[in-house]
Amino acid sequence: MIRSALFCFLLCLLTGISQAGECLVRGTGDLGIVIERATGSLVVVDTTKQVALFRVRGLGDLSHASAVYSRDARYAYVFGRDGGLSKIDLLCGALVKRIVQGGNSIGGAISQDGRLIAVSNYDPGGVKVFSADNLELVADIPATLVSQKKRSKTVGLVDAPGQLFVFSLFDSGEIWIADLSNPRSPAIQRFKNIGRQPYDALVSPDGRYYIAGLFGEDGLVLLDLWHREQGPQRILDHYGKGERKLPVYKMPHLEGWAIAGERAFLPAVGHHEVLVVNSGDWKEVGRIPVHSQPIFVMARPDGRQIWVNFAFPDNDTIQVIDTETLKIIKTFKPGKGALHMEFSPRGEAVWISVRDQDQVRIYDTHSLKRIGSLPVDKPSGIFFTARAHKTGL
Amino acid sequence: MIRSALFCFLLCLLTGISQAGECLVRGTGDLGIVIERATGSLVVVDTTKQVALFRVRGLGDLSHASAVYSRDARYAYVFGRDGGLSKIDLLCGALVKRIVQGGNSIGGAISQDGRLIAVSNYDPGGVKVFSADNLELVADIPATLVSQKKRSKTVGLVDAPGQLFVFSLFDSGEIWIADLSNPRSPAIQRFKNIGRQPYDALVSPDGRYYIAGLFGEDGLVLLDLWHREQGPQRILDHYGKGERKLPVYKMPHLEGWAIAGERAFLPAVGHHEVLVVNSGDWKEVGRIPVHSQPIFVMARPDGRQIWVNFAFPDNDTIQVIDTETLKIIKTFKPGKGALHMEFSPRGEAVWISVRDQDQVRIYDTHSLKRIGSLPVDKPSGIFFTARAHKTGL
Repeated sequence: MIRSALFCFLLCLLTGISQAGECLVRGTGDLGIVIERATGSLVVVDTTKQVALFRVRGLGDLSHASAVYSRDARYAYVFGRDGGLSKIDLLCGALVKRIVQGGNSIGGAISQDGRLIAVSNYDPGGVKVFSADNLELVADIPATLVSQKKRSKTVGLVDAPGQLFVFSLFDSGEIWIADLSNPRSPAIQRFKNIGRQPYDALVSPDGRYYIAGLFGEDGLVLLDLWHREQGPQRILDHYGKGERKLPVYKMPHLEGWAIAGERAFLPAVGHHEVLVVNSGDWKEVGRIPVHSQPIFVMARPDGRQIWVNFAFPDNDTIQVIDTETLKIIKTFKPGKGALHMEFSPRGEAVWISVRDQDQVRIYDTHSLKRIGSLPVDKPSGIFFTARAHKTGL
Repeated sequence: MIRSALFCFLLCLLTGISQAGECLVRGTGDLGIVIERATGSLVVVDTTKQVALFRVRGLGDLSHASAVYSRDARYAYVFGRDGGLSKIDLLCGALVKRIVQGGNSIGGAISQDGRLIAVSNYDPGGVKVFSADNLELVADIPATLVSQKKRSKTVGLVDAPGQLFVFSLFDSGEIWIADLSNPRSPAIQRFKNIGRQPYDALVSPDGRYYIAGLFGEDGLVLLDLWHREQGPQRILDHYGKGERKLPVYKMPHLEGWAIAGERAFLPAVGHHEVLVVNSGDWKEVGRIPVHSQPIFVMARPDGRQIWVNFAFPDNDTIQVIDTETLKIIKTFKPGKGALHMEFSPRGEAVWISVRDQDQVRIYDTHSLKRIGSLPVDKPSGIFFTARAHKTGL
C-alpha cells in the first residue's frame, strides 16, 4: 500500500497537481452548462444533485451564446457573439482552448462523427470548420457576396447524417448543404431563391427535414435531406395573412425539439401564435394564440407538452400546451427574464433561466411545481450533455 | 507545490489507492459494455477509439443478459439469466455491487428519474424494484398465481414517463402498469385477457405506446399509455394467416428502436418476415420477406435503414432494409453468431457481436463497409451509454 501511495504521489507531481487535485472522476451524462451572459462566464452543473460544480471565466461576449458537446460528453464547445469559440472541459472546470474565429457569430454545430466543429458567422459571412480536438481550422466556406465587400450572414447551422452541415444565408436567401466527408474539401450544394431572409432553422430529430423560418415574409421553407432533388418547398405560406403584424423585438428560435410525434410546433414571427403543422404533409393543422411573441417553443421529450417562453416585455411568463388538445394547460411566471428552458433527457424536469433573479429554477414537468433552484449570475442558455447524442443539437 | 503533492498523497491513501490509480478521468458519453456470455464477464469499451478499457468478471450467468445505465452514464446495471443484478462502474472497471435477487430473470429497466432499478423475474414470477444507488430492495410486485405455487413469468419490462414501469405476464396473459411515484408503495393497474403468452414488449421512443408481442397467437397488443382508459388493442391480428408457421428456435426481441419515423418494423414469430405498421393507426402497410426468423429488427437512429439479424442456424447473416422502399439493400455475413447490434448515437457506425469469431465488428452505416473490430470473448449484448438518456432503454 505504501508503495502504491508513493507511486500515486509521484504521479500527482508528474501530471500536475492542479489536474489531479481538481478534475473529477465522475459520469458526464448528467452534467450541463449555464451561460452567465453578463460576465463572459458559465457554470458547470450537476443535474442530479442540482448544484454547480465549477465556474469558467474568460469566454468573451456571451450576450448571445450557444453550445454543442463532444461525443464523449466531456467537452462543451461554446459559440459566443464576438466570434469566440471556446472548448470547455466539464470534468476539470477548465477552458481548454479559446479562439476568436470571426467578428460576429451566432451559432455552431458538431459533425455526426464528432470530429468537426462548424461555426456560422455574420462577419465575415460564412461558415468555418475546425477540428473538435484542437480547434485548428480545417475548412472555410465563405458565403455569397451581397455587396462588393460584404458576404451574407449565415444562420440556422445544423449537423445532419452523412457528415453534413446545413445552413441558411440571411441576406441572399439561400440554403446550403456542405458534405464534410472529405473535411478539407467540403462539397457544397446551393439552393437559391428559397425565400426572404431566413433567420434561423431546425433539423428534425431524425436528421431528415431542415426547416428554415423566414423573416422577410410569412412562411417557412422545408428541405427534405433524403430527397434533395425535390428542392426547398414553402410551408405555412402567408401564415400571417389577414392579421396585423406586430413589431418584433426579439426573433424566435427554431430547434429540433419543435417536433412532437406527428406534429411540429413553430413560433410565428410578428404574431402571438404557435403554428401547428402535421409533420407528414407539413400542412397547418391549427394555431394556438399565446401570451406574446414566442421565442422558444419546446416539446417535452415525450412530446406530450409544449413549453413556450416569450419576448420582452413579457419574458416573465411561461405557457404549457397540451399537444393533444392544443390547449394551454398552465400559465405561470417564474420571474422576469425567463430566457431559456432545458428538459432533463427523460423529461421529468425542466430548468428555466430567470435572468433578472440571478437564478435557474427547476420544475417537475408532471406536477408543474417548482422543485429546486440554483444561483447563477444573469443566466441565459442552459445546455445538458444529453445533446451530445442528438442530431442537430 | 510540495504541500499540494503531500495533500494529494494523503488523499490517495484515504480514498483508496486502487481507486485513484485505476479510475479514469474521462467522459462517459462514448463508453459501452459488451457482454462475454460464456465467462460471466463483460468488457468496457471506448467507442471513439474503438478499444476495450477494462474487463469485469464475476457476473454470474450472462448467457442471456441485458443492461441499463444510470442517468450520469457512469454505471451499468446488468441483469443476468441467473437472477443476478450487478452494478458496474465504467470509469473504474469495477463491480460496485452484485445481488442475486431471483432464480431466473430476463431483463430490467431504470426509472425516469434514475432512482429505481426494476427487474422482471421468471422465478419467482414478478417484478422487484431496487434503489439504483445501493441495490436495496424498495418494492416487490408478485405476479398473478398460475398454479398453487407458481406465479406467472414477467417479460417486456420498460420504464415510461410519469415514473412508470410497464410489463407483461407471459403465463396469465396480462399487462400491468406500476406507478412508482411513491416507491415503497407502487400503484398497479392490471389489464387482463390481453392475448396468449406475451413474450416481450417495447415502448415507443416517446414513451407513449407499449407494444407486446404474442407467442400463443399471431398478433401484437398495443396500449396507449396516454389513454389507458382505451385499454389494450390488438394490432396485426392473425398476421400469419394462410402461411405455414415455422418452428421457432429463438424468440425475437422487441425494443423501442423498431420505430422509424411514421412506421414500426416488427419481427414476425414463426415467419421469415418483418412486419411494417403505420405508427399512426397501427395498420399493416407491408411485410418484407427476409432471410430467416428475425431476432433483432433495429432502426438506424435516423430511421433511414433497418438492420436485421436472425436465429440459428442463420445467425451468420445481417440484412439492411431501406425504410422508404422497404427493399433489402444489402445482405452480408459478418460471421457465425452475429448475435447483437448497437448503433452509435448519431448513427454513423454499428457494432456487431460475432460470437463464434470472438470479435465485435464495426461497420460504417453509410458505406456499409467494415471500419474496425475488437477482440471480445464470445461476445453477445452490446450496450452504449447513450441509452442513459432514452426512455425504454
